[in-house]
Amino acid sequence: MSVSFAQIVAEKPMTFTAECPTRAVLDHVMSRWGVLVLSALADGELRWGALRRIVPGISEKMLASTLRTLVEDGLVERTALPTVPPHVSYELTDLGRDLMERMLPLLGWVVEHASGIMSGRPR
Amino acid sequence: MSVSFAQIVAEKPMTFTAECPTRAVLDHVMSRWGVLVLSALADGELRWGALRRIVPGISEKMLASTLRTLVEDGLVERTALPTVPPHVSYELTDLGRDLMERMLPLLGWVVEHASGIMSGRPR
Repeated sequence: MSVSFAQIVAEKPMTFTAECPTRAVLDHVMSRWGVLVLSALADGELRWGALRRIVPGISEKMLASTLRTLVEDGLVERTALPTVPPHVSYELTDLGRDLMERMLPLLGWVVEHASGIMSGRPR
Repeated sequence: MSVSFAQIVAEKPMTFTAECPTRAVLDHVMSRWGVLVLSALADGELRWGALRRIVPGISEKMLASTLRTLVEDGLVERTALPTVPPHVSYELTDLGRDLMERMLPLLGWVVEHASGIMSGRPR
């Protein structure tokens, strides 16, 4: 893919300024918790409790706020079944799956190189 | 690329916990300013002043701290020529260029879909 930053900014000069939708979406999907929640859902539908266990270290409050943002962005769909107790689950939308096709290679790269990067840092 | 979150976490159960190098590297390279500085450098070497102009809205302090982190990670190389005034420039290392091959498709996706995502959000 031959996309470059200069090209993006030349074509749309407002890109990534504070007022631009790109900045907001970048903040949502590339925030630490956004990345981890989306990645967990990339494997399929999950209930609240499962997400809470799978995403290492996320608080209830942060999980709720991250999911709300991703649902409002149309990347994640929330399904609530009127059972007792209520069954609430989350899954990626088609748009979310499309995003994850671009994000998982990057995540795989981070996993592959993280130890080398951190061990080479100055103390 | 057939990498999945479940697969990653199954193979390395500590992945993405607060103590894991993956979490630190994820925070460095997927932070808003990390993404934008790396992306600007993806087009080639840049001097400090050029970076400051190109990355929309970054403060001097944040640019300095972002560059220091990326240099320590081995993703960016800082070159200082002993001229008067000093000529300081930054460019991606091979590792940084390798990372950007994974990141630019994701960034292109965000640019393509951001307006649609933000206009579909509830007010």
